[in-house]
Amino acid sequence: MKVHGKPYRTIWVAEDQASVEIIDQTRLPHEFVVRPLASLAESAAAIKTMLVRGAPLIGATAAYGLWLAMRADPSGESLKSAYETLLATRPTAVNLRWALDSMRSTLAPVPPASRAAAARSRADEIADEDVAINRAIGMHGLALIRDAQAKKRGPIAVNVLTHCNAGWLATVDWGTALAPIYAAHDSGISVHVWVDETRPRNQGASLTAWELREHGVPHTVIVDNAGGHLMQRGQVDLVIVGTDRTTSAGDVANKIGTYLKALAAKDNGVPFYVALPGPTIDWTISDGLRDIPIEERSGDEVAIISGLSKSGETVAVRVTPEGSPTRNPAFDVTPARLVTGFITERGLAPATREGLVRLYPEFAVGQSRSARG
Amino acid sequence: MKVHGKPYRTIWVAEDQASVEIIDQTRLPHEFVVRPLASLAESAAAIKTMLVRGAPLIGATAAYGLWLAMRADPSGESLKSAYETLLATRPTAVNLRWALDSMRSTLAPVPPASRAAAARSRADEIADEDVAINRAIGMHGLALIRDAQAKKRGPIAVNVLTHCNAGWLATVDWGTALAPIYAAHDSGISVHVWVDETRPRNQGASLTAWELREHGVPHTVIVDNAGGHLMQRGQVDLVIVGTDRTTSAGDVANKIGTYLKALAAKDNGVPFYVALPGPTIDWTISDGLRDIPIEERSGDEVAIISGLSKSGETVAVRVTPEGSPTRNPAFDVTPARLVTGFITERGLAPATREGLVRLYPEFAVGQSRSARG
Repeated sequence: MKVHGKPYRTIWVAEDQASVEIIDQTRLPHEFVVRPLASLAESAAAIKTMLVRGAPLIGATAAYGLWLAMRADPSGESLKSAYETLLATRPTAVNLRWALDSMRSTLAPVPPASRAAAARSRADEIADEDVAINRAIGMHGLALIRDAQAKKRGPIAVNVLTHCNAGWLATVDWGTALAPIYAAHDSGISVHVWVDETRPRNQGASLTAWELREHGVPHTVIVDNAGGHLMQRGQVDLVIVGTDRTTSAGDVANKIGTYLKALAAKDNGVPFYVALPGPTIDWTISDGLRDIPIEERSGDEVAIISGLSKSGETVAVRVTPEGSPTRNPAFDVTPARLVTGFITERGLAPATREGLVRLYPEFAVGQSRSARG
Repeated sequence: MKVHGKPYRTIWVAEDQASVEIIDQTRLPHEFVVRPLASLAESAAAIKTMLVRGAPLIGATAAYGLWLAMRADPSGESLKSAYETLLATRPTAVNLRWALDSMRSTLAPVPPASRAAAARSRADEIADEDVAINRAIGMHGLALIRDAQAKKRGPIAVNVLTHCNAGWLATVDWGTALAPIYAAHDSGISVHVWVDETRPRNQGASLTAWELREHGVPHTVIVDNAGGHLMQRGQVDLVIVGTDRTTSAGDVANKIGTYLKALAAKDNGVPFYVALPGPTIDWTISDGLRDIPIEERSGDEVAIISGLSKSGETVAVRVTPEGSPTRNPAFDVTPARLVTGFITERGLAPATREGLVRLYPEFAVGQSRSARG
């Protein structure tokens, strides 16, 4: 998507063909800084310190990190130690392990002299595959936005509400929840996005708003409390969010507060869609409330907020009284009954096991096999 | 309620018997500063610059402001101009006009030489009446918390979730939504409060958390996004909120985000109560969504957050990208169908016209009369 009018991905091979470049996401939204990653160590540090975040982008960064490691030393020991170094950066990221396993199985049988070239080629593929999946999600979601537009009289913008950041910054390009919005905007549909600020980490107010502003998509930042009111007043046509984990029955774990928006959408007859790449569905679990453990993050994320001071510095300020405890569950579970449907790279599906199996029959087979075994 | 272990009201006559003292609420939660108000001008400024806030406290401050004006000059012109000066401080505050009208009708027939004494006496009454109403709300709400405790096995705290600040800081003492919590705590019931931070102005994180901490009530600050998740996990026994405006049919306008919590409470079978002094019910309207206009406040409240920096200064920081628009509806409407009941100074009532009329028959008579006329 665009930054300062120029198309970007979140990671790309630099002109020197010997390093990659990334957008330093810790500096957004107040500064746009591109950083080179020239080594394994720099790649690992970029993931660990969250210069890059979002499961697909972490996977791609790890893949390119292995390439950089192979450029420096293509030996078997180097491959093994680079794999381990990168895997340890964010232990719970599923895409990270998947990308590293894929790189390792590509490289292991290749003679050391050819490993750097093979690594570059596979890392490029991993990045391109992510872009292709997200573009497809965008195209399928575009149909929903087009339908919403057709239901409105006159040239009024379609209002889409989103929560957190499931945009191109979390992926290599396009994003998941924002992909349909970019697809609609780029095809000339008038679309306006309500951006939940998404406390406590404010990924909406910072990352989503920045993305949309840079690409030129009309948007408005609101507090997380405001979405229900806007739906009551007919000012939301569609909700689209991403997901961190999805069960085979269609329950959705996503950023804390998603469930409240799903309730409000249901109460007001507003369609509530979840955009996701099909392979991220967890076919081993069905009941989200029972089976998905919810990460508790540091209470300081609630108590302390960072932003740009008048003098242009990033300053952290405490908003709670000293000594008042805080709790910080990072995700909540939206039951499938509140989800209108999924937007996947293979098309739309209702939030039911049957709906998902119809799009992904290969996973269902794997599942019934393991149930039999 | 207590501050540093000592009982306080939010406004009181100073030892010199010639001025009043208030808590400077703009300095909370990071500093506890008591300020004297020695004149009409200081009283008006305290309301205008929000050193005091909350409808009942604004009314009491205006009443004492008229007393201070009468001490300085008890003439008819002085009474008239003091009335107008105070009324102009916060034009939309209903209690402000009510308190000033009550003071004026008490003072107008009194000879100037006796006006200061009469003003002091009526202002004291207005403050004491507020305390009595809130204490009664507390006692009626206490029964609900006692019931909730009886349903729990063993000595586990009753978990009450609240939104915004409807505590003693908004009134002269006790508060409305927090009155039952103080009553329960003071009578030895183990109660724990989930405090919604209440973006954008963070009245929960600052004022409610501070109140509860000072009075020694166990509490935890959460982001507004977290309440639904906690209810799903059985960690909320009861929701109690205040209200800015209530219709005769039981619809409730309260701080933005209240509606989302009411939806989550309904979805999880958690009782959702609204605490209010009966006289604040607006008998002239019934449909909250149709009849209650929602104030839009400055978008800067969304974009810019104030807090305490590490070096101990209050600093305002921007959390949104420069140039991203914001919207800031200040209230939302919770339909009566989501309200389990009202906690009033006369007892509990279901959120229906019949329920409210049973407690306040005198208002219903007025209403039907005006409908006939």
